[in-house]
Amino acid sequence: MRYELYYWPSIQGRGEFVRLALEQAGADYADVARQPRGGSSGTPAMLHLLGDTTIECPPFAPPFLKAGKLFIGQTANILQFLGPRHGLAPRTEAGRLWLHQLQLTVTDFVVEIHDTHHPLGPSLYYEEQKAAAKLRSADFTRNRLPKFLGYFERVVVQNPRRCGYLAGGRLTYADLSMFQLVEGLRYAFPRAMTRKEKLCPGLVALHDRVANLPRIAAYLASTRRIQFNDEGIFRHYPELDL
Amino acid sequence: MRYELYYWPSIQGRGEFVRLALEQAGADYADVARQPRGGSSGTPAMLHLLGDTTIECPPFAPPFLKAGKLFIGQTANILQFLGPRHGLAPRTEAGRLWLHQLQLTVTDFVVEIHDTHHPLGPSLYYEEQKAAAKLRSADFTRNRLPKFLGYFERVVVQNPRRCGYLAGGRLTYADLSMFQLVEGLRYAFPRAMTRKEKLCPGLVALHDRVANLPRIAAYLASTRRIQFNDEGIFRHYPELDL
Repeated sequence: MRYELYYWPSIQGRGEFVRLALEQAGADYADVARQPRGGSSGTPAMLHLLGDTTIECPPFAPPFLKAGKLFIGQTANILQFLGPRHGLAPRTEAGRLWLHQLQLTVTDFVVEIHDTHHPLGPSLYYEEQKAAAKLRSADFTRNRLPKFLGYFERVVVQNPRRCGYLAGGRLTYADLSMFQLVEGLRYAFPRAMTRKEKLCPGLVALHDRVANLPRIAAYLASTRRIQFNDEGIFRHYPELDL
Repeated sequence: MRYELYYWPSIQGRGEFVRLALEQAGADYADVARQPRGGSSGTPAMLHLLGDTTIECPPFAPPFLKAGKLFIGQTANILQFLGPRHGLAPRTEAGRLWLHQLQLTVTDFVVEIHDTHHPLGPSLYYEEQKAAAKLRSADFTRNRLPKFLGYFERVVVQNPRRCGYLAGGRLTYADLSMFQLVEGLRYAFPRAMTRKEKLCPGLVALHDRVANLPRIAAYLASTRRIQFNDEGIFRHYPELDL
């Protein structure tokens, strides 16, 4: 089955957590909005689906995944669907609940990262909320960043399987997301991360291990990987860094 | 099995979405932090668990649920666990994915509601970020509130089962959460809701129907239901309303 991923074509954004899972799975997928515009591809096709009032399960926003007849929205939900199908989730219910719990905490972290540059909401440009962004970012780099990193570090270290991954004894979709978080935070807050990374050696090791997985390494080196830029979740505004 | 719910004892907060599901399920549960302080109850017991480095699956924050040997964190994840066990979720995988997708969109909505009074982050008091809160709230009441309400209204109306509920042909945990959203938004933004409710009659009908479920009605009239106040997600600051 060929999956169809629908996400904005010019940013990594939330879609990147899904892309990484599809890439590591070696799954056959189309990144629909990045394909040339046509009847069922390109951004207009995605927007058409978002506005389609005949869809039984309409997504609120991208990303969403078409898998056969299924239409699945919400990043963590898509990953929860893909994980067990591609060996990226534990086999037991307890293991899967734990993994999903971690992914939902990743989701919370992502919201707070995004809000560093958009504390007054999505309707104003960054330039219109720069002063508020500085205040929010100061709290983020001082308090929230170390709190989240410290939590995930604790999870890696306390994992009874002592395998260097977050949940269970092997790679899962949450590890791929953790790679993306470390990578994105380094891009957005290089000064803060230089300091805070010292407190989470387990996460840094996990990041490096994921980066060196053959399929992930090939993906990162390909044109399928969109570069970080100042339109996504992770934005490098030096004035917001430590 | 007696569930143990761990959540802050003085607010509805995110824990309320779980409380409503447990109440409608008629489940046997202890609201641990609301019980008198003792060895394994009261807020200190919850804080002890949060800091316990021997727990294999440590939650990042309340709420979390103890169900036998399972320790489940993240509101939507707890609901996903409880739903199928108590007849509050569809039977098919497709139905459950759809329901969970809706719950994760509720989660997104809750974050944005919370951020109306805390746009600069959780470390500052409301009084310290009032000016920013006014700007964020203006965007919320003008743009985000109608967008989210419009989305969920569309979901109710488009539900092919035409039963007035969000997903499938019967009540689910997402309907209970939708009740709580309407209730909380009316408390926090009475002027905005008076106007916006006219655009979502399906959601208002759903709210009323949930409020009249015998178990929910009994719960709402009991002392187990904490009243809205100015420490939770939904806060009534008239200066933030339309």
